[in-house]
Amino acid sequence: MIKKLVIIGVGLIGGSLGLALRRTAWAEKIVGVGRSRDNLIRAVKLGAIDSFEQSAAKACSDADLVVIAASLSEFSSILSSISAALPESCIVTDVGSVKSSVIKESELLLGQKFPNFVPGHPLAGTEKSGVASAFSTLFEEHKIILTPLKRTNAHAIELVRAMWCAVGGRVANMDPQAHDIALAATSHLPHILAYNLVDTVLQHQELKDNVLELSAGSFRDITRIASSSPEMWADISLTNQKNLLDVCLQYEKGLAIIMRALESRDRNALESIFGRAKIARDEYFLAEEKDG
Amino acid sequence: MIKKLVIIGVGLIGGSLGLALRRTAWAEKIVGVGRSRDNLIRAVKLGAIDSFEQSAAKACSDADLVVIAASLSEFSSILSSISAALPESCIVTDVGSVKSSVIKESELLLGQKFPNFVPGHPLAGTEKSGVASAFSTLFEEHKIILTPLKRTNAHAIELVRAMWCAVGGRVANMDPQAHDIALAATSHLPHILAYNLVDTVLQHQELKDNVLELSAGSFRDITRIASSSPEMWADISLTNQKNLLDVCLQYEKGLAIIMRALESRDRNALESIFGRAKIARDEYFLAEEKDG
Repeated sequence: MIKKLVIIGVGLIGGSLGLALRRTAWAEKIVGVGRSRDNLIRAVKLGAIDSFEQSAAKACSDADLVVIAASLSEFSSILSSISAALPESCIVTDVGSVKSSVIKESELLLGQKFPNFVPGHPLAGTEKSGVASAFSTLFEEHKIILTPLKRTNAHAIELVRAMWCAVGGRVANMDPQAHDIALAATSHLPHILAYNLVDTVLQHQELKDNVLELSAGSFRDITRIASSSPEMWADISLTNQKNLLDVCLQYEKGLAIIMRALESRDRNALESIFGRAKIARDEYFLAEEKDG
Repeated sequence: MIKKLVIIGVGLIGGSLGLALRRTAWAEKIVGVGRSRDNLIRAVKLGAIDSFEQSAAKACSDADLVVIAASLSEFSSILSSISAALPESCIVTDVGSVKSSVIKESELLLGQKFPNFVPGHPLAGTEKSGVASAFSTLFEEHKIILTPLKRTNAHAIELVRAMWCAVGGRVANMDPQAHDIALAATSHLPHILAYNLVDTVLQHQELKDNVLELSAGSFRDITRIASSSPEMWADISLTNQKNLLDVCLQYEKGLAIIMRALESRDRNALESIFGRAKIARDEYFLAEEKDG
């Protein structure tokens, strides 16, 4: 059991972590930090944190563990503000969707304390934001990826792993670059595709009027993540810019090939592309769906 | 109550219709027709049809209502084979995802019987195929679109409407062209996007290995429809070729704009595109999701 856990940024992820940990005896005291006093008051009422402070540095000055759960664009200013105040023994982790940038910034800003930083990313979330959407079971049976470096302290990794295990997560370690490349394809690109699909419909008045009338399950499901926070996803996209552009280009090439097959009425080509995608998708998920 | 209903093509849609209708007293006898005798035997065992015949013409020769629920590419050969045998009073409908082509073919093949043909499209389905995946509640609360012409007999429209109402569908009429344009955007394009997303991951060995490990809910949801039948979707895509190519082009343009914004790190542009998509998507679905 640790004495003081500080969560900086008490939104969907930070709030759900607080809610889940307060159901365990894992931390004696969970203190929230954030820009909005109203949000922090709500977080206390919802049971996500025990109390709050508005100065991150002050909150962290006697913390055992700090979880930075704010948006990626705030990460470096938060780290600057707490770096000097952090006790030597304090462990720091984050929940950002992109890991290389966070590692670079914390190496720069934490200096000698850098080995106590454990980069993390819970593969959990919904299209909703804010502490009002938080729930205590968000991480149960979800993958939590940690991307520690060789220099990262082993006991720091252990503590962060233990925290995620306490809320039901399945923790795995990964190389930060490999994480960022894979997430560009499996999460960041899908968000762009979903936003662009809704936007394509919006460009077309006739479609716009008919869409609600005619949207079957496929449109609703495929656009669910287009209800996610635009600011957060602009942030993630720009932070993972290079990997995301690479996979967008691959996607664009694939789409052009399908369009050419469609244009030349090449049924074999269409069936072959659709077919190999189906086989792969079924292999990935169908066994899992049967279990679930 | 009608005496004899014939369902040609007893798969997910035809089978679910049979299962649902057999729970009502809407038809005295439901007869299945299909290419595979094994499938028809299974359909009888599952309770989707009362009996089956392998000759479509024979089955239809004393039918009151015929539902063509085979794939789009089989539509015209099925219609050719039954056209002469259809009683004058027999009503015919279909469930195809594209309506203009079906109307053109039936106008040609049914001749004087054409006013008894009611083009239809239930906006219901799953990524699975075959009668084994059929279930009796598939159409409940789902939109069923009919696209009759001015020449279509009013009592034919009424009978088909009554059939779908009997299985819980919410029936609406629409112009066939408007239907095909809207469906290209809300259903056919999403399938292409999902197939292409899985295929993009497949092109990249490193991604392929990491994808299962790292796929969060977004990837799983957005690729669900990539588990759909490749043959059926090649069929639908080619049948709605022009409209689908149009909306693919619009989509491609939108993607290029997002990629340029990403490349030039234009945060405002990204937030603006993502933001208007989010607002529109929330308007379409959030009220409904709260109800549901």
